[in-house]
Amino acid sequence: MPLLVVGSVALDSVETPSQRRDNILGGSAVYFSYAASFFTSVRLVGVVGDDWPPAHTEMLRARNIDTAGLQVIAGAKTFRWRGKYLENMNDRETLDVQLNVMHDFTPVLPESFKRCRYLFLANGCPSVQMKVLDQMPGAELVMADTMDLWINNDRQQLLELLRRVDGLVLNDSEAKLLTGDENLVRAGHRVQELGPRFVIIKKGEHGAMFFSKHETYVLPAYPTKQVVDPTGAGDSFAGGMMGYLAEQASFDPKTLKEAMAYGILVASFTVEDFSLDRLQQISREDLRHRMGEYQRMLAF
Amino acid sequence: MPLLVVGSVALDSVETPSQRRDNILGGSAVYFSYAASFFTSVRLVGVVGDDWPPAHTEMLRARNIDTAGLQVIAGAKTFRWRGKYLENMNDRETLDVQLNVMHDFTPVLPESFKRCRYLFLANGCPSVQMKVLDQMPGAELVMADTMDLWINNDRQQLLELLRRVDGLVLNDSEAKLLTGDENLVRAGHRVQELGPRFVIIKKGEHGAMFFSKHETYVLPAYPTKQVVDPTGAGDSFAGGMMGYLAEQASFDPKTLKEAMAYGILVASFTVEDFSLDRLQQISREDLRHRMGEYQRMLAF
Repeated sequence: MPLLVVGSVALDSVETPSQRRDNILGGSAVYFSYAASFFTSVRLVGVVGDDWPPAHTEMLRARNIDTAGLQVIAGAKTFRWRGKYLENMNDRETLDVQLNVMHDFTPVLPESFKRCRYLFLANGCPSVQMKVLDQMPGAELVMADTMDLWINNDRQQLLELLRRVDGLVLNDSEAKLLTGDENLVRAGHRVQELGPRFVIIKKGEHGAMFFSKHETYVLPAYPTKQVVDPTGAGDSFAGGMMGYLAEQASFDPKTLKEAMAYGILVASFTVEDFSLDRLQQISREDLRHRMGEYQRMLAF
Repeated sequence: MPLLVVGSVALDSVETPSQRRDNILGGSAVYFSYAASFFTSVRLVGVVGDDWPPAHTEMLRARNIDTAGLQVIAGAKTFRWRGKYLENMNDRETLDVQLNVMHDFTPVLPESFKRCRYLFLANGCPSVQMKVLDQMPGAELVMADTMDLWINNDRQQLLELLRRVDGLVLNDSEAKLLTGDENLVRAGHRVQELGPRFVIIKKGEHGAMFFSKHETYVLPAYPTKQVVDPTGAGDSFAGGMMGYLAEQASFDPKTLKEAMAYGILVASFTVEDFSLDRLQQISREDLRHRMGEYQRMLAF
């Protein structure tokens, strides 16, 4: 089943304690799409400027990612993010953000995209996320991401969004911020009570937690020695997870748990190099192999 | 198979954001012993002053914990620790430490204890830990804990100890400090290369990681809403783990993984109340029940 994602398409500049890359391919919709493309066809909605290298679009298309929804704005520049990871490779500082074309991005979905039944609203302004939802009344599974900016500055709109989505993905500090609860298990359930049928709290190197009315579980991250660049891990997680759900055309509890594990594993590859570099080296078979290792790790 | 532990016996005063308790039963050897006593008989070596309530000793004895190695020093005071947990219930400040009888504690093992084949050296000065080892040349499985104080101030002795133990248990920040590596997977393997056959990195609410020459795995913590007092979680983990190993009289890879899971589950009960209050309410059956939930959580 095809999967639709609306989110950012970016040129990132990333510094880590040992390396630096400038103007590399990034953005939530890009990481999500590529991660999902191991499992299903993807339709991407986003916006770039005319500084965008067409080769990136070609590369995505070759992955069965439909870029008909990628607007190119003449005379404008692509969204740019510059950040720096600290020694622990978990905390980061944003050094510069140039919204450029994202500043007044109002996603308009191609007609053919509106029939998609699985939708991911990558991190963005909740009112824009809802405008996308309005265009897809037939969506069966809607998942969304959010961030501290919207929790702090746009809480009412975010709460409205939460009543309209099936699943929410957010990180641990965001869950604490949204609920005011420092205990992640309680925080997860409280977010779930705000509307979504299920909530996933991402914990970076510590894995992810799942909450629904009747279920609570935690899966650890896949232990990797090789953390080169954590950028895009969260979006890769969401893409791997939702890609698997779309492939299975199901989101029953059993499939959701398998999907979460696949999300964790795709993300574990993403962080092993900059941008999509590592993901571009692997196949579905590599994911299957790592899944075997992961399941053995958790079996006793 | 009986299990021997050498460590601290303490009266703790604990503040959390919502509650406070003074002079409650604590200490590494106490948490370890009680946790292990769900699985096997325990022999405790420690020291207290004459301010020590004999009722505590009685309570431990009733759990099949042999206190023949608990010295009571007349005219002296028991080790006291006072600490305060921050809002997140993970970070804590030590407000006061009174070493008292621990100041010049030199463990002398009763003859009957020396034949014990499973030994846990709770956190302590490495030279003292080695003096205990010297008294037990026939030990088959020796595990030890350590802390930042010894890593910073007593590194040479600690490195000597590491060449003499089978397993080391330490927390994430200590593993990073000992190796200078911020990646926990690399840090775990580096510690293992310093001597122990296996290393366990405790990550608090995020679970624990296991490292041997041929294995690397992570198990998450059991997700609990009810974190009242994290004091003793690490020692309960070690006690539950080693208690299970002693019960099974084995430390093959399969048993080690089961044991680590039991350690995680005993610790998950410990944090649900102050001191041993929660552990005193549960039975082996409760542990078995939670193990079932935990295994279902990790199966997919």
